[in-house]
Amino acid sequence: MHRYRSHNCGELRATDVDTDVRLSGWLHNRRDLGGILFIDLRDHYGLVQLVARPGTPANEALGSLTKETVVRIDGKVSARGADNVNPDLPTGEIEIEVSDVEVLGAADQIPFTINADDGVNEEKRLEYRFLDLRRERMHRNIMLRTAVISAIRHKMVALGFNEMATPILSATSPEGARDFLVPSRLHAGKFYALPQAPQQFKQLLMIAGFDRYFQIAPCFRDEDARADRSPGEFYQLDVEMSFVEQEDVFQPVEKLMTELFTEFGNGRTVTSPFPRIPFREAMLKYGSDKPDLRAELELVDVSDVFAGSGFKAFADKHVRALAVPDTADQPRKFFDQLGDFAVQQGAKGLAWVRVGEDNALTGPIAKFLTEDDIKSLVVALDLKPGHAVFFGAGEFDEVSKIMGAVRVEVAKRAGHFVEDEFRFCWIVDFPMFEKDEDTGKIEFSHNPFSMPQGGLEALETKDPLDILAWQYDIVCNGTELSSGAIRNHEPEVMYKAFAIAGYDKETVEAEFGGMLRAFKFGAPPHGGIAPGVDRIVMLLADEPNIRETIAFPLNGNAQDLLMGAPSEVEEARLKELHLSLRKPPVK
Amino acid sequence: MHRYRSHNCGELRATDVDTDVRLSGWLHNRRDLGGILFIDLRDHYGLVQLVARPGTPANEALGSLTKETVVRIDGKVSARGADNVNPDLPTGEIEIEVSDVEVLGAADQIPFTINADDGVNEEKRLEYRFLDLRRERMHRNIMLRTAVISAIRHKMVALGFNEMATPILSATSPEGARDFLVPSRLHAGKFYALPQAPQQFKQLLMIAGFDRYFQIAPCFRDEDARADRSPGEFYQLDVEMSFVEQEDVFQPVEKLMTELFTEFGNGRTVTSPFPRIPFREAMLKYGSDKPDLRAELELVDVSDVFAGSGFKAFADKHVRALAVPDTADQPRKFFDQLGDFAVQQGAKGLAWVRVGEDNALTGPIAKFLTEDDIKSLVVALDLKPGHAVFFGAGEFDEVSKIMGAVRVEVAKRAGHFVEDEFRFCWIVDFPMFEKDEDTGKIEFSHNPFSMPQGGLEALETKDPLDILAWQYDIVCNGTELSSGAIRNHEPEVMYKAFAIAGYDKETVEAEFGGMLRAFKFGAPPHGGIAPGVDRIVMLLADEPNIRETIAFPLNGNAQDLLMGAPSEVEEARLKELHLSLRKPPVK
Repeated sequence: MHRYRSHNCGELRATDVDTDVRLSGWLHNRRDLGGILFIDLRDHYGLVQLVARPGTPANEALGSLTKETVVRIDGKVSARGADNVNPDLPTGEIEIEVSDVEVLGAADQIPFTINADDGVNEEKRLEYRFLDLRRERMHRNIMLRTAVISAIRHKMVALGFNEMATPILSATSPEGARDFLVPSRLHAGKFYALPQAPQQFKQLLMIAGFDRYFQIAPCFRDEDARADRSPGEFYQLDVEMSFVEQEDVFQPVEKLMTELFTEFGNGRTVTSPFPRIPFREAMLKYGSDKPDLRAELELVDVSDVFAGSGFKAFADKHVRALAVPDTADQPRKFFDQLGDFAVQQGAKGLAWVRVGEDNALTGPIAKFLTEDDIKSLVVALDLKPGHAVFFGAGEFDEVSKIMGAVRVEVAKRAGHFVEDEFRFCWIVDFPMFEKDEDTGKIEFSHNPFSMPQGGLEALETKDPLDILAWQYDIVCNGTELSSGAIRNHEPEVMYKAFAIAGYDKETVEAEFGGMLRAFKFGAPPHGGIAPGVDRIVMLLADEPNIRETIAFPLNGNAQDLLMGAPSEVEEARLKELHLSLRKPPVK
Repeated sequence: MHRYRSHNCGELRATDVDTDVRLSGWLHNRRDLGGILFIDLRDHYGLVQLVARPGTPANEALGSLTKETVVRIDGKVSARGADNVNPDLPTGEIEIEVSDVEVLGAADQIPFTINADDGVNEEKRLEYRFLDLRRERMHRNIMLRTAVISAIRHKMVALGFNEMATPILSATSPEGARDFLVPSRLHAGKFYALPQAPQQFKQLLMIAGFDRYFQIAPCFRDEDARADRSPGEFYQLDVEMSFVEQEDVFQPVEKLMTELFTEFGNGRTVTSPFPRIPFREAMLKYGSDKPDLRAELELVDVSDVFAGSGFKAFADKHVRALAVPDTADQPRKFFDQLGDFAVQQGAKGLAWVRVGEDNALTGPIAKFLTEDDIKSLVVALDLKPGHAVFFGAGEFDEVSKIMGAVRVEVAKRAGHFVEDEFRFCWIVDFPMFEKDEDTGKIEFSHNPFSMPQGGLEALETKDPLDILAWQYDIVCNGTELSSGAIRNHEPEVMYKAFAIAGYDKETVEAEFGGMLRAFKFGAPPHGGIAPGVDRIVMLLADEPNIRETIAFPLNGNAQDLLMGAPSEVEEARLKELHLSLRKPPVK
């Protein structure tokens, strides 16, 4: 028999009764019923019940062990009485009569409870992560993460992509966030940078002729933590393709996401195909470029209705309305609470009306609306008796933000929010340029390296503010999983785009010379995307905090409490790296 | 039709004749035969021949383009005449009559040749790596690497292992080599370290209850480059398993390696099962703990033959002999060259004899051997007429080193070396301790964290120098792919092992407190291994230099010539990191 186990703790069944077995695992739980010890033995694969009868050596050995001790036991599988079958446990029809016990790993008193949630704080959990990971929820989350990433790899290979690792010790990249730096020992005064993303390398792989690349890529940004962002390192599904247009990128990603979220969504469905929503339309209808489409309500621009109106609060402003069916009969409190919500979002208040029989309007602002206003609203919003209508007025961006939040909140409160679905969409047609409100200067809206729609001709002939980019986001349930773009691979187009944003050729060459040089030796059209792996796992695990889906995360303060990082280093090491610590200013 | 291609450059066949096609790719080569242009168009998938007839716009367009320009062409597939079929090319039965040409990516004059090996130096290749990777050999190597790593992942999952990523920003680990450090912005004067290996994290994953872990793990050591070691980062197949003995680690790794090297070995066979060779035996028979078993000769210890002998050069020394069949008739030059080789290895010379009829010995040292010596040698070495015998004498370690090298060299020169096979072995039973020659102190031989064979009892009762460790190497064709071990997971055994090596409990706790703490809360017996991925790919690609198997390696001087790393950073960045550059000493 194997030194440690003939079976694991999750696989024994009624058909194994009378088999002699050897098991190893952790002492998960112990109950003493009139001297008979019932013990749950746990390993990676499951739980199994051990029985040690009074007066046996096994009873004596098992009676004194602390929880979480690792033991090897020998015994015989026996059927549980019908009354004692545990239908919630795969091994629930059997138990093991223990004949021999060996302690393989002793356990001190554990600092928090493994077999139940005792509300221990996160710092303690991270300090003892090797214990925290034994808990059922964390074990499940990490195994989900493992399965999801393995499935992504499998599916990407099936889709014709090749995984390639790009360098981790590299140069500073112009991604916008702060790099982590690594001092060089061999080159005094010089530093490597950890990649914020493998953006340049993946484009170089396209220029090198590898047609379809992906990587589960470690990325590093020296930024502060957020619930959905781990400080330090994170992983993205980095993707790049040659000889493609925007839709060619969407096809495999949409197939991947649909399969992945169906397979690991725990019964939640995926609506497919994913709608393509132009950026401007998304801002109008959802007040956001990351719309949560589970909220089945849409905003409508009714500014025209109130142009020149006598209702000063709306007149000649941007006015957005949200019509909500089957809501007119909600009590006053419902509307007041939504008003409070809007104020929390930065609004001064929330205007609303109820639609009654014959589309008669009632509510705080009803009296300010003329017959014509009402007629126009009924048409614009397709109003029916029973609707409630909410209004926001002011500047476009501010109204979008507030009414976008109100849209989702109302949908949840009024029964227009679909749970248990993953609703994806593509946001497309982002503007290439925008005007700085203060300076009036034309600037890049998002990514200066995206290809403008219409190429060089558009740059030379159109109003820059009318030029759209081949740039897109993929959004799921209000979470942006990634931006992506068809890249600008033509040096002439790049010089021109930068010129519009006020950069001369010399500046462009000084800043982005490496990539420009590569583009001059035969670059294929190419584009890609890079969905966040951590966010995908968070959505699938239904966990609001990213750290619950990572085995060994840094804490919110960028510390590894388990291994004690960051830590001080010896002076000799600093000297070797040609560095000295900067003294804090004398106070 | 798709904007860029209806087919790729590798897929068209005779059955596609008369199909209208659109292709995109790089202009690989161009020949002008009486005004007809024949062009090889290349993409990731292959090469296809284009034809542009004189006087057509296509001829004009294609005639002026530089090599490596990226073009989109439209055309019709036509059959090549029987005389023009190229059997070496999958698309060799057809060509494309081009009707339309669009330049997608212009190309300046390329700094070296893509479609042939022009002997350009490595620095230039790395500076223009995006071009170098277009060359057939590099493209094939990188795709091999991709396929090998993907297959490893697939096979490891099939073997029941779960891939988990461990932190890259972490704490200094006691691996022995030099860490790369990453200064912390949030914690003044403190540093993260990049992992030399995920050793501690994988052990923590075992303690956390994940049964079988693997990772294609990026590892970082600030060491100088070697042919088989990239400066900076490298990848290992990191593996750890719980509730296992040594053979349990060998089984899946042996299965993986056998499948992998069979699948990607390009016809080379794998000898299986892998022999288990105790360390001491390996040193005796092969003079090395990384024996190249393709050399089918073994060393024999003949010290006893010469104990008390009158032949002063051998008397009372450690003497190792190598008997080589079918070699006595080699000319004197053969022996002299091997003598030179031995001298290069550090020997003073190489003694040898020829075995003739009736086992009569001739050669330089024959006259020093007595009848008894010869009789004993014939028995010890099973000598037959036609053998040649080589001798080394001196200290055990020195003789092992020299005669180990001679063994392989003789095998190659005398036809006892098997090409085209992968011969793996496990080296086992490494000594736990050794005595420092100078100080007489007992020290750890290799890894202080391996479990001693016999556990605590062995430590308490045996001569330390007789204690073996559950530690092993996997070796292929003379290359060590990895060390591994069953770990010491019991704090009491660890305290005792360190005590023997002269460390008191307080020192052990100060140095290794983190792991010791984890071991005290129920640690399972566990062990693992970590074969180098780069070395596996080198063996399979039959490339002697690791950089030929990595897309974007640092050069031998730890520089990224393409992206310009490492580089200087702005003073503001240093200030943010609480660092200043150390001034070079004034001369």
